[in-house]
Amino acid sequence: MNKEIVLKSRPVGKPTSANFEVKDIPDPIVQDGELLLRAKIFSVDPYMRGRMSDAKSYVAPYELNKAIAGGAIAEVIKSRDARFVVGDHVLGMFPWQASFTANASSCTKVDGSAAPLGYYLGILGMPGLTAYFGLLDIGNPQKGETVVVSGAAGAVGMVVGQIAKIKGCRVVGIVGDRVKASYLKAEMGFDEVVCYKDSPNLSAEIAAACPNGVDVYFDNVGGEISDLVLEQISKGARIVICGQIALYNSVEKPTGPRVQVGLLKNSALMKGFIVSDYSDRFPEGVSALVQWIKEGKLSYAQTVEKGFEKLPEALISLFDGKNTGKLLVEV
Amino acid sequence: MNKEIVLKSRPVGKPTSANFEVKDIPDPIVQDGELLLRAKIFSVDPYMRGRMSDAKSYVAPYELNKAIAGGAIAEVIKSRDARFVVGDHVLGMFPWQASFTANASSCTKVDGSAAPLGYYLGILGMPGLTAYFGLLDIGNPQKGETVVVSGAAGAVGMVVGQIAKIKGCRVVGIVGDRVKASYLKAEMGFDEVVCYKDSPNLSAEIAAACPNGVDVYFDNVGGEISDLVLEQISKGARIVICGQIALYNSVEKPTGPRVQVGLLKNSALMKGFIVSDYSDRFPEGVSALVQWIKEGKLSYAQTVEKGFEKLPEALISLFDGKNTGKLLVEV
Repeated sequence: MNKEIVLKSRPVGKPTSANFEVKDIPDPIVQDGELLLRAKIFSVDPYMRGRMSDAKSYVAPYELNKAIAGGAIAEVIKSRDARFVVGDHVLGMFPWQASFTANASSCTKVDGSAAPLGYYLGILGMPGLTAYFGLLDIGNPQKGETVVVSGAAGAVGMVVGQIAKIKGCRVVGIVGDRVKASYLKAEMGFDEVVCYKDSPNLSAEIAAACPNGVDVYFDNVGGEISDLVLEQISKGARIVICGQIALYNSVEKPTGPRVQVGLLKNSALMKGFIVSDYSDRFPEGVSALVQWIKEGKLSYAQTVEKGFEKLPEALISLFDGKNTGKLLVEV
Repeated sequence: MNKEIVLKSRPVGKPTSANFEVKDIPDPIVQDGELLLRAKIFSVDPYMRGRMSDAKSYVAPYELNKAIAGGAIAEVIKSRDARFVVGDHVLGMFPWQASFTANASSCTKVDGSAAPLGYYLGILGMPGLTAYFGLLDIGNPQKGETVVVSGAAGAVGMVVGQIAKIKGCRVVGIVGDRVKASYLKAEMGFDEVVCYKDSPNLSAEIAAACPNGVDVYFDNVGGEISDLVLEQISKGARIVICGQIALYNSVEKPTGPRVQVGLLKNSALMKGFIVSDYSDRFPEGVSALVQWIKEGKLSYAQTVEKGFEKLPEALISLFDGKNTGKLLVEV
């Protein structure tokens, strides 16, 4: 018997386990041009919160009582397409089902001997490319500049910080706890890491960590932390809006200090993006990331939960900020 | 006897005449390398409000009990510099004084026979160049796109709208009253002009004027009008932050809807600027503007008040939104 996890109800505020339901479903039947796949590793990502609502966004909402879907790695069990054989591993946007079929053309073969399979959902996948293009194309960091990244211990943030170091910048991370802070300084080369949860004066701490102001702010979190960083921007600053996890669960339309006057006074730029804006440049990004990993300039962390039924809990936990690096669920 | 207008006290909120004082001062004495000048036309501009406060901004604050200063045209009365002769007209950042001296190197000769002298403070000066570079460099309008401009009847706004028409865009202006609205549609070629003061549902009116969404928003005003425009931005929109006149008088730190989620969902860009960011490209801008005026593609309006002592009142009136086009005070 097969199983799936569906969206049972749309969350109001932070998602809870009651918004999900595990269901028994029939085994899938494979057609010509399709692959029969067994799920191996699922990615859980903050953007998925947006799809749980029915508000207009850059990706379509999940349908109620249908399987959640997201980035995943699966193993080919039967192939009805000449490009794939049994035992291949493929990457795709797949349903939260133990086994399923997929059009072969929507699957990308990945090589588990070249890199751990989970990497294709992380540093060599969406989060790594998000860091690469957001930082380099929008942030455009120059040698000697100060780059601040929020959510610095997350899958995107830790890559952003390391690429900024490669580019010769002073890198300041913002994280939730001291364990993550030590980790980023010791293992990822961050110059300073500010810990927002136990800071008596976060604004002063950010200012002290950025004596020359903030030239690039790579924002994964939004909300009040970002308000404080924006007070420190320097003339010509670039603010990369990558994620706003602090706001995804808000029920009311979020309000805060108006940013426009600060942008005006500093001739500063703020730009949102989604990694698919750069899809025609993905090969460039992957090749740069692989090269830096090989050279030992880029390291990487992931947190792996085990068990299909852990998926809802793992997704919910993203909003508590507990994971370090990419959060995956291995089946 | 000479006279000047000084900043007597810093305004809290909107400036009042009590913040200014007219004083008798001695006649100036000209030194080598200087010009003795008689004021002809003063420019009053929204950015001057910022200089009346002592908060950090992109220009230094005015000093208390010293003359206000701003863009002006003056006539050369005595010249101690070989580049200028008596009777020349010069443009510069000059004090609010009936006559004064200036270092000749800080003065730019202007030709009153090529264009009305006031034009050098408007369409061929700071406001025209602000419109040109902000719209073209940041807004980057493409043929067929929808460009919205707030403060559309102002010195910058009316030029923005006309350049956007030259570039083949649908142009929607936002103004305060119906007289201005009719004027922009009849004389400046705007496709639609929304009047915020008497609109029963401004949001719906903006949406109706922009059926394909807003691709470029050139923002001169900020505040609640801009909040409504930002709800209508399309994928890849560019928001040019040129002025925030609605906020310049605010005593509290202004708050409003957070813009970041909207920028993220639409991969949109928001950028502040000041015209001096483009100073190395001013000749290009002036030459394009002159060409469009000659071709009859760009028309222009100014409101001229008369009398040196009208300066404070004219500056204050900017914040009531009464002027159409560039506001000047002729001495």
